Order: sequence, then C-alpha cells, then structure tokens
Amino acid sequence: MAYELFYWDGLQGRGEFIRLALEDAGADYVDIARSSKKGHGTKAMTRLLDPKTTPFPPFAPPFLRDGEMMISHVANILLYLGPKLGLAPADAQLQHFAHGLQLTITDLVTEVHDTHHPISTDAYYEDQEGAAVERSKAFLLHRMPKYLGYFEGILAANPHGNTQIVGDAASYVDLSLFQIVAGLRYAFPRGTQNLGADYPALCALHDAMAERANIKRYLTSKRRLAFNEHGIFRRYPELDHLS
Amino acid sequence: MAYELFYWDGLQGRGEFIRLALEDAGADYVDIARSSKKGHGTKAMTRLLDPKTTPFPPFAPPFLRDGEMMISHVANILLYLGPKLGLAPADAQLQHFAHGLQLTITDLVTEVHDTHHPISTDAYYEDQEGAAVERSKAFLLHRMPKYLGYFEGILAANPHGNTQIVGDAASYVDLSLFQIVAGLRYAFPRGTQNLGADYPALCALHDAMAERANIKRYLTSKRRLAFNEHGIFRRYPELDHLS
Repeated sequence: MAYELFYWDGLQGRGEFIRLALEDAGADYVDIARSSKKGHGTKAMTRLLDPKTTPFPPFAPPFLRDGEMMISHVANILLYLGPKLGLAPADAQLQHFAHGLQLTITDLVTEVHDTHHPISTDAYYEDQEGAAVERSKAFLLHRMPKYLGYFEGILAANPHGNTQIVGDAASYVDLSLFQIVAGLRYAFPRGTQNLGADYPALCALHDAMAERANIKRYLTSKRRLAFNEHGIFRRYPELDHLS
Repeated sequence: MAYELFYWDGLQGRGEFIRLALEDAGADYVDIARSSKKGHGTKAMTRLLDPKTTPFPPFAPPFLRDGEMMISHVANILLYLGPKLGLAPADAQLQHFAHGLQLTITDLVTEVHDTHHPISTDAYYEDQEGAAVERSKAFLLHRMPKYLGYFEGILAANPHGNTQIVGDAASYVDLSLFQIVAGLRYAFPRGTQNLGADYPALCALHDAMAERANIKRYLTSKRRLAFNEHGIFRRYPELDHLS
C-alpha cells in the first residue's frame, strides 16, 4: 500500500524533507493534500487533526500514514521511514546519531522560519519586517555559521569519508542537508555567496545528492514545487545581508 | 554503570526534561557538569563537543552517555531512555506517538525561549526587550493556547483515561508536561492565571506527577535547581501579559 504524506499544498516547507526521502527511494506514495482524487485534498488532511475522531492526532502537518501507523514531525517520520527506504544505518548508535543530526536540522529550519517571522507566526511578514531584518542579521552572522560549521565538521570527521554524514552510505540526513543548502541559497543569495568556500564538504554533498538518479528526475518533475514566499525559505531582499 | 547526563550547570533548561525521567525511575546517573569529582565539571562536557576528538559529537547540550552510546537532543535521549526506565509504551505506534508529542513539547520550549530572545540568542535580553514584549503577547494569545489546547485534547481523547497522555501508564511525556505547566506558571503568573480552568486535565496531570514518590523527593532535593532567569522559563514582569 502507498504511503500517505499529509502536508500543505503550494509550498515545499517541512514536507519537502519527507518527499526527498520518498523520491530518492522510489517509494510509492500519495501527497494527499495535493491530490485531486476523490477523498483527497486539503480537507482530507485537516480533518485528521481532530483528536475527537482521529487516534494519535498530529499537532500539525507534515504527518505520514502507513496503513494503521500514524506518525508526525519530520524527524519522527524519517526515523520511521529511514530503515524501510534503505536510507538509514542499521547500527543503533548510528541511528540515534542520524536522528540527532536530523533534530539539529529541525532546529535550524525553525530558525530560518523565524528570520521572516520573529514575532508571530499568526501575523503578516510586513507587520514584523523590522524585527525580521534584525533577526536575519543575527542568523547570518552567528547562527547559520554555527549550524553549517557543525555539519561540515561532522562530515570532515566521518571515518568512512565525507561523501555522507553518517556511516558509509547515504541516508535521509544527507537528503535533508541537500535541502538546507538549496534553501539557504534561495533565501539568501548574498548571505550564502561564500558557502562553497566556507563549507566545501557540505556543498559537495549537496551537489552529489542532486545528481542521484531519482533526485535528479524528481527535481525536474512537477512534483517538485519551486521555492516561494509561502515556505520556510523565503527570498526577501531586505533580509539578505552580506555575511 | 551510571548514565552520564551532560548539561549546563546553574539552570534547569532543557536538561530538566531528562533529569525528571531519570529521577522518576530512580536511575543511577551523574550530572557531569554539576559534579565536582575529578574529571567532571563543565570542561569535561564542552570538550566532548569537538568533532575532531569525539565520535558522534552533539551540536549542543543536553546529551547523554550510556557506556559506548552517545545521544543528543532531549527527545532523542528520552526515546532511548524511555523503555530502559519503564517510562515508555511497548507498542510501536504508541512509541512513535509519544515521540511526536515530545517533539511538539520541544517546539513549545523553543517558542518559550524565544519570548525572551526573539532576535538573537547571542545578544542580551535587554537589547531585544521591545521585540520580546511583542513576541510574548503573541505567544500568550495564540501559541500557548494552541499547544496546551492540543495536549488537553489528547488527554481527553485517551481511551485509557486522562491520567496519562499515552496509553495506560505514565511515560516520560507526562513528566515533560509537568515541567511545561510548572515552567509556564513560573514565567507567566498573570498569563497563566486561568490555566486550571482552561486546561483541567493537563493541570491535574501536573499535580499527579508532582505527587509521584520519586518526583516529590526530587523536587525538594538540592538536585532540583530553582527556576531562574538563565533558563528557558524566565520571569520578566514586562513579558507577563494577561491573556
């Protein structure tokens, strides 16, 4: 049976980290909110958020249904899918390490989101633009280098080589790092202009992931939405400081 | 061998979610940064953050060492410890559900942190107080009710009763929810004055957790640090709006 992915239509957002893993593995899945089939669509997703009628209701999309199993939060979904898709290490320590890296990516994604919404997720960007300018400065100056420097350091220290971040084979973490590099470059073309020089292993990993056969096909398909100003990574020139 | 918990000295912070699980289970553990034994202390913790010398280095505290195993991020640590401490369900769906709830708590904790640091974690509170006032308003008006309403709804819908949030026995998630209620009440005495009326099951869960024998003993021990203005939950009257 096909995996059912539930995420908002019209943006890559947090759902994209799941899509990349499913696509790379060539898994059979339905992107429910984006499907026009009967019984699909956004309403089919939002009604699953009601705890009165749904067992194990998620707090928010993305979530995944696999038969009877219902799983929410990107890192939790990838923890579940990783071994099934052949995108996770077999060793328990490495699995927890991969999950910890994914949770660090989760934190980074939240900080990227907050560059454009530092005050309230329920208010318009325009109404918090001043704070957004300040938060973006701090993000590009302090936080982005801290996160990317960490991932670069882990890649450099991998005893199996720097072509994957965990163990000796590509995992869902590598695919998520591809998305991080692509997203940061979209949102901050000035702020990331030295990315290749500053984080060579991370950027090489990005390029290698983009060349994997299924990912390459996916990126040019219409299933891959373009980055836009509804997602996590938004291009607002006034937030794109030189770093 | 004792579990080794690594977290900053002097604050409850994110480490407290781990401490509560270890304490409730009566587990043998050492709080390394707070220990004055030879080879312990904060330096013993920070040198483990170097990827050149540490296999599986964490991005940041808290992290846990259990013999050869090294695990970082609160939710990841509790995922690992839960079954060992008798504080997690046995069923796979319930384990993923518990983990998803813990990740929702993680997101809430980040939002609480950002009420006092909405612009930059590397800058003083005083230098971002104006933005903090705005972010706290939005937090108390929109975000806190969204999170607490979700947990209340999950408790109410638990087919095994509302005295625990997952399945039919107390888990690490219940202990984390205790900390959330206690922390929010500390930080926002005005903003939480109707908590008991608005979220009766959640507040009853808090009270029940506080009465568990090991937790009761822990809360009056000197191992339990007081809430203070270095942690996640900080009491700044100017951020404590009526909600």
